[in-house]
Amino acid sequence: MYKSKINISIRKTILDPQGKAVEHSLQSLGFSGIKDTRIGKYIELLIDAKSAEEAGEISRKACEKLLANPVMEDYSIIITEIKEEN
Amino acid sequence: MYKSKINISIRKTILDPQGKAVEHSLQSLGFSGIKDTRIGKYIELLIDAKSAEEAGEISRKACEKLLANPVMEDYSIIITEIKEEN
Repeated sequence: MYKSKINISIRKTILDPQGKAVEHSLQSLGFSGIKDTRIGKYIELLIDAKSAEEAGEISRKACEKLLANPVMEDYSIIITEIKEEN
Repeated sequence: MYKSKINISIRKTILDPQGKAVEHSLQSLGFSGIKDTRIGKYIELLIDAKSAEEAGEISRKACEKLLANPVMEDYSIIITEIKEEN
């Protein structure tokens, strides 16, 4: 069993209004040294696969088919093995 | 300058209806080996700080004060240094 941690973010060239709104809120709370705030999605999946490579490939396909918008978003995937306790 | 990557996810004990909906969609697309899907937020910040420790502390405060819901959500923070090109 593998855990897949997927970070999906809007491409750098595309305006992120939600990020801008959060940045303004942070600045009005006194966080003056924060900039370039961008908001994306974080998705965790448990995948029943034979290898980390297979789990990565399943995650990539899930991103391409459903989770990410391939035109506007980039994604990164981290696979870790979950040891099952018996 | 430091980049802070923050993953915010709903606590394990709290139901995640958005994750369940995505899991059903994945299964109807043929991804049968995927379970325990959970959806959270991914936030990137650029922080002007003197050290990685200070950038981490600013990120933690931003999570506590604004970004995360301390009752329902957990967060993890990864700080990386950004080399500025002159």
